[in-house]
Amino acid sequence: MSSGKFLTYIASHLNRDEAEISSIVASCSFKNVKKGSYLLQANEHCNHGFFVETGLLRQYSIDKKGKEHTISFVPEDWFVTDRDSVFFNRPSKYFIQAQEDSQVVLIDQNYEKLMSEKIPNFAEFNNRLLHNHISQLQERIDLLLGATAKERYLHFIKMYPDILLRVPQTMVASYLGITPEGLSRVRKDLALKNFKK
Amino acid sequence: MSSGKFLTYIASHLNRDEAEISSIVASCSFKNVKKGSYLLQANEHCNHGFFVETGLLRQYSIDKKGKEHTISFVPEDWFVTDRDSVFFNRPSKYFIQAQEDSQVVLIDQNYEKLMSEKIPNFAEFNNRLLHNHISQLQERIDLLLGATAKERYLHFIKMYPDILLRVPQTMVASYLGITPEGLSRVRKDLALKNFKK
Repeated sequence: MSSGKFLTYIASHLNRDEAEISSIVASCSFKNVKKGSYLLQANEHCNHGFFVETGLLRQYSIDKKGKEHTISFVPEDWFVTDRDSVFFNRPSKYFIQAQEDSQVVLIDQNYEKLMSEKIPNFAEFNNRLLHNHISQLQERIDLLLGATAKERYLHFIKMYPDILLRVPQTMVASYLGITPEGLSRVRKDLALKNFKK
Repeated sequence: MSSGKFLTYIASHLNRDEAEISSIVASCSFKNVKKGSYLLQANEHCNHGFFVETGLLRQYSIDKKGKEHTISFVPEDWFVTDRDSVFFNRPSKYFIQAQEDSQVVLIDQNYEKLMSEKIPNFAEFNNRLLHNHISQLQERIDLLLGATAKERYLHFIKMYPDILLRVPQTMVASYLGITPEGLSRVRKDLALKNFKK
């Protein structure tokens, strides 16, 4: 399997030649995951980060009543992990499932160690990833606390332009924290407004 | 002003003698903030972290309709900042206000630089802080997406045992993402259950 996208992603973010880091990237494992299969299940320990070369993953939790809540969609060129479980060595609360047949790069601590040793600005890059993650989570909280269903939906389609076409509406609703009926209403309202323009 | 709690906090988390780091901690600024005054306002750039020696701060946002949403309460021995604004040098979306007369330590990048140079495990400590922050934000999203008002409230009083006695109920409701009436109902239900026991 090729690790083309991951190599390009890392090289560009670290401002390095691909040749310089290709041997480190080649030390990562790769996995083909069939639609519906899991990279992580709740109560397991998460030991990897997952970079999506092709396909689509979904991270979600299941609450006490058995209802699913989508934490994130993870399309090509995106990265997902449960940092809490990896860093603090705690069982995860999350599922990471292939929403489509996918090819993923498995990033483990060995890779991080190698990168830290060989690439001087890797720590800075990693620090930036952590801050980006914090910014995204904070924005999500803001939207959940203070935005209307319509505002959340508009933010979603900006962030994930093609995901609506790739997953059932129930999953999008579970990401937005609204009911599927609420999502339908928002979409109808917006369609009507565009029609009237 | 004494920097006693901050010094103790840093020394214990870095596993160092207080004497060893007291000169670095002494390089931080201190500020007395009166109840109601601001350490940060929306659209300003956040340049500091704030450690609360005494008192209580509150971080909140105001949505387009003018409604306040409490992001966090920050009592003694807690730390608050807007990492997005500090790290990415972007205007903040948040207010950080003194909820009571407070004494705070102002932590700037100069302090972080000094600590990084002098204390070998400071980067590791800082990394742990970032991961802790991610864990807390993730948990908040889980609660907003999947927990009932009662579950959120119970989580709140576990996390902030004495805050209920120090702030108006409307602020607690705005943290929980429920109406003040919803919060009253939850408290009445719980009081009734305890009475029946």
